[in-house]
Parts: sequence; structure tokens; C-alpha cells
Amino acid sequence: MTFAFDNAPVWLDLLGVFFFAVSGSLLAARKNIDIVGSLLLASLVGLGGGVIRDLILDSGPPAAFSNPAYLFPPLLATVLVYFLFTSVQRYTSLLILFDAGGLALFCMTGTVKALEVGMHPVAAVLLGVMTAVGGGLLRDVTANEVPQLFNPKDIYALPAFAGAALTSLLWVAGAFNVLTAAAVATIVFTFRVVAWRRSWQAPLAVHGWHRRSLRKGGSGDGGSGIEGRRD
Amino acid sequence: MTFAFDNAPVWLDLLGVFFFAVSGSLLAARKNIDIVGSLLLASLVGLGGGVIRDLILDSGPPAAFSNPAYLFPPLLATVLVYFLFTSVQRYTSLLILFDAGGLALFCMTGTVKALEVGMHPVAAVLLGVMTAVGGGLLRDVTANEVPQLFNPKDIYALPAFAGAALTSLLWVAGAFNVLTAAAVATIVFTFRVVAWRRSWQAPLAVHGWHRRSLRKGGSGDGGSGIEGRRD
Amino acid sequence: MTFAFDNAPVWLDLLGVFFFAVSGSLLAARKNIDIVGSLLLASLVGLGGGVIRDLILDSGPPAAFSNPAYLFPPLLATVLVYFLFTSVQRYTSLLILFDAGGLALFCMTGTVKALEVGMHPVAAVLLGVMTAVGGGLLRDVTANEVPQLFNPKDIYALPAFAGAALTSLLWVAGAFNVLTAAAVATIVFTFRVVAWRRSWQAPLAVHGWHRRSLRKGGSGDGGSGIEGRRD
Repeated sequence: MTFAFDNAPVWLDLLGVFFFAVSGSLLAARKNIDIVGSLLLASLVGLGGGVIRDLILDSGPPAAFSNPAYLFPPLLATVLVYFLFTSVQRYTSLLILFDAGGLALFCMTGTVKALEVGMHPVAAVLLGVMTAVGGGLLRDVTANEVPQLFNPKDIYALPAFAGAALTSLLWVAGAFNVLTAAAVATIVFTFRVVAWRRSWQAPLAVHGWHRRSLRKGGSGDGGSGIEGRRD
Repeated sequence: MTFAFDNAPVWLDLLGVFFFAVSGSLLAARKNIDIVGSLLLASLVGLGGGVIRDLILDSGPPAAFSNPAYLFPPLLATVLVYFLFTSVQRYTSLLILFDAGGLALFCMTGTVKALEVGMHPVAAVLLGVMTAVGGGLLRDVTANEVPQLFNPKDIYALPAFAGAALTSLLWVAGAFNVLTAAAVATIVFTFRVVAWRRSWQAPLAVHGWHRRSLRKGGSGDGGSGIEGRRD
Repeated sequence: MTFAFDNAPVWLDLLGVFFFAVSGSLLAARKNIDIVGSLLLASLVGLGGGVIRDLILDSGPPAAFSNPAYLFPPLLATVLVYFLFTSVQRYTSLLILFDAGGLALFCMTGTVKALEVGMHPVAAVLLGVMTAVGGGLLRDVTANEVPQLFNPKDIYALPAFAGAALTSLLWVAGAFNVLTAAAVATIVFTFRVVAWRRSWQAPLAVHGWHRRSLRKGGSGDGGSGIEGRRD
């Protein structure tokens, strides 16, 4: 029953690249960056996580460079955002939705690729999470924003953790197939979007500390363009 | 006629490393960083793009680590800036010129190295662009500045794109040699410097948006030390 | 006499991972990041330097992914900081101490690993320094702070340089063993902590410039949460 995933799930990976690439072009739009920067940011976000994954797996040049098909999603995302995006208002919602789509697909493809080359299931989960959050981290770091990943008012990495862990469990149990993969992707996407909509929050890094009381102690964390910008 | 490029064009690469290293030390000077940080920033900018390139090509340890000659340009750049640089005023012009020199050489060496190991010409262009802009991106990200690459008031990546595409075309046509390489480098360098001098701008990431009207919508993008600092 | 270092010094590496991971969780605590972000920051800082090192050495997947033991120190650090850390006041001192511990161990393990695979001793020193400062650089860059590495009011990279150079010299002389390793680690740790306590400063990147006189010329370097925060 593990059909469609025996070979590297290229089409899932490409769809994930496209979702992340759109989020990169949307950020470029909001930050008033030009169209060349938009293409570069789309490429960086879409391909970054997968390139890091493939470098760590150490099985030849990364897919993004050995398979020219990977170069189309960033190009398509840049062109679509250039012609179709019209309103600053819808920016955040759209970025979150596309980012969640990429997250849902990449936490699976990263974990599966790692398991396929024989990596330990726990290490495969870590690599899946890195693949999923890597591109977005690169996006926010290069655009000089506080990464969405570290926004304490939002839950970002937990859905990726959950998706990678589920994928690894299903794989070890021999039950990872198209149906369960679709279920995992749906769970991760829904978890991420609902967490954002309802402003779910994880506990802080220190037991017994509260968000409010630390306000004065926290450093001025600069240009976080993400928190408090919902519509 | 493809003499001098049959083996990895080491001397071109070393010259590019030196140019980028000087730009790193100049940024260290302006940001009031000490001499050890200057050496590290010079190494990061000079060697960063090439290390990323060699990691992706996956053909043994990066040149910067297997060939000790690569360690001299950053050292030389740090020492030169320490003893010869005297005026804050000339900082930006000098940084742009050296950065443009590195850009012109690296977009070629990156593309050629990728083509030499049999990469697809389109993927080779992407790798050439990444090699050229990678070091400068690392420089600006680690110094906590908005990358020059994403400054909408300037054209940075387009010359690298042009240079990498020309190199790839010439290579495929069998016409890449010392003369055409010098021509490509001159075009890229001139394009970059003139674009900066004349404040050429590419279209924004979204069709029909204008720079002025977005002023309120754009996030406070923090400490961009680059824009509006010409002399 | 080179016993205990003939194989990769895994336990030293793990201890270094733990020290850096604690520094990551402490930064997460101060920046008011949630516990998932704390785990990710701990993993990034603890494992980042070593992953970069192993990617460059190009000898199979990085240790952090091929040996599941590497996943425990970040988990342990996150849990310890969550339950045991109680005071914002002691934050900086603790972070500096743990960071110095990681620095002392990683500048050695990075250099030794490079020498073991036959890298040139000078390149091995560079890789040792990169291993030691890489994790902390990733920590500060992703948390959107000016890297500690580039803080001109502090000496950070010089102890790592000294430690890596000493390790390389001792190795070439055939005198690198448990005793000399402990001595090197002690020297690096002491150098780093005393430099911080006494506010030692290295010369600036330009000869004859002084910190005060550049105040107006220096860019507003944004949210450096590190300088001037001693207790």
C-alpha cells in the first residue's frame, strides 16, 4: 500500500515549493521589494528548506539543482503575485495560508526522504521539521524580520513536529500511503491555520513566567512585522 | 579556445574572494566592529558564496578549505583596510565598487563550476547567481542589515543574473574563453555600478504598485544602513 | 599518548552541544519565546556549528543526524531552563558562561575532526573557529540580534582562534592528548570569561579610529541586546 511514495515524492515536493515561493513573493510585496528580489526571495523560501535537507542527507547535489523542474514554481509564484495580487489588506491571511500549505507538505517529504536513505526515525523527524521550517526561517532572516517561528503569540513549529512525528510513526508501522499522507497534511494545515486564527499559544520557555510580566525585561525585539497584524 | 578555464579558474575565484573580503572589512569599519570581527566578516563574505556553491555541487570539501591559498585574500583585505582606510566619507562608494568586482567574477566562476560538473545550464545560472549574491547576503544578514539584495531603490541581482546567463550561453555555444569572460565581467561590473550611480530601479513585486504609495503599508524595516547613503 | 581522541571525541562534542543548547534556551527565555521555540533555538545553536562543520568535511551525513544521542542535549537544556531558571537578572552571566563552555569544546573538536580527515592545519584552524562561533552566530542571527561575535565592546572570536591554533599546533607536534586538551579548554574558557568580565577590547577594524569618535559615523545598529547588559 505504500505506492506513490516508493520514489521520491517529487510532485508533493514541487507543490510545497510553490506554496512557500508564494509566501516569499508576498513578503517581497509587503516589504516593497522589487520584482528581482521577489524572485530571489521566492526561490530562497521555496528551495531553501529542501536544499538544506538534501545537503544533510548527502546523496548528491540537491534536487533543486539536479532537476530543472524545481525552478518553475518560484518563477510562477513571482509572476502570479506580480499580476494577481492587488490588496495590502489580504497580505497576512494569504501568506499564512500558503506558508501553512508548504509546512504541511514539507514536514512529510523531509521525513520520508530521510527515512528512505535509512536515517533513524527520531533523526528523520528532526530533519522533517527542519525542512518544513527552514525555508520560512531563511525568508524571515534575510528580510530582517523576527522569524515567525519564534513569535510567542503564535504556534508555528508544533504542527510541523506533529506532522513529521506522525509521518515517521506511519512509515515505521508500514501504513504510510496516499490516504494517510493526505490525512497528515490536512491535520498539519488545519492545526497551523486554526492555531493562528484563534491565537493559540504554547507555554513560554520558562516555567511560571507570563507574557505580560516580562514586557519590561524583554529586549526591544525590533521590527517584527508579523505579530499583531491580522485582518 | 576555452583555454585557462579547463581547470577550475582558481585565480579568478581568488580575486573575487579578495574583492568581497574588502567589502566585508569596509562594512566592519563602518559598523565600528573590531579587527577580529573584521577578519571574520571578510572571510564570511569572501568565502561564503563559494562554500555554498561547493556544498551544493557536492564534489568533496569546498575549495576554501582544501586549498589554503583561499585563506590569504581575507587576511590581506583586513590588513589593507586596517592600515589604508582613512575616511568614513568614501565608505559607500568603495564598498559598492569592490562588491561589484566580486559580483562580476563570482557569477562567472559559479556558473562555470556548475557546468563543468555537468549541471543543467538553467540550474547552473541559478547556482552562479547564488554564488555571486550569497556572500553579500551573508554579510548583510550577519551584520543585521536589510540585505542590499532586497533594497528596492537599487539593482543588485539583475547584473548577476545577466552575467550568469551570458556565461551559460557562451559555454553552451563553446565560445567561453578569456576574451569573452573579460567582456562578461566588464558588462556585469559596469551594469552594477551604473545602476547604482543613476539609481536605476526595477519594477516592484506587484504590478501597479508604486514606491511612494506603499510607504504607510510597508513595515518599519529597521536598520537599513544602505539606502540613501550615497556620496 | 593521543588516546581518547583517536576516534571522534563524541562525548566532548555532546558536552559542547549541551552548553550551547543551554545558551539557546536562555536567549529564548529572555526574548519571551515559547517552549517549542526554545527547543528549536537550543537545537539550532547546539547542533548548528557541528552540522556546518560536517557538511564542509563532506564525510557522510552530519553526526547530529546519524547519531541519535545528539538529540538529547537540546531536549535536556530546554527542560532544565524551563524548570530551573527563575531570574531574568542572572540571564547574561549564565548565557556567557555556557556559551564560553561550548566555545572551548567546539574550537577543539572542530579542529581535530578536520585534522583527522587530512585537512591542512591552517584550514583546520579556520574550520575549528567556524564550528565554535557558527552555532552562536546562527542563534543571534535567527533571534534578530547583532551577533555577539561582532560586538566591538567584547572579545569573542579571539579565544576560539587561540584554542583552534593551539589544538592544531599540539596535533602536528603529536602532543594532543587528554591533558593538553583539558589545558586548552581551560585557557579558552578563562580567556573568554575574563575578557567579558574585564571588558577587554580588540583594536577596531581601522587603524587610528577610536570608539568614541565614530559614534556619529556608525549606523544605528539596532537591537543589540548584548552590549551594556552586565550584572
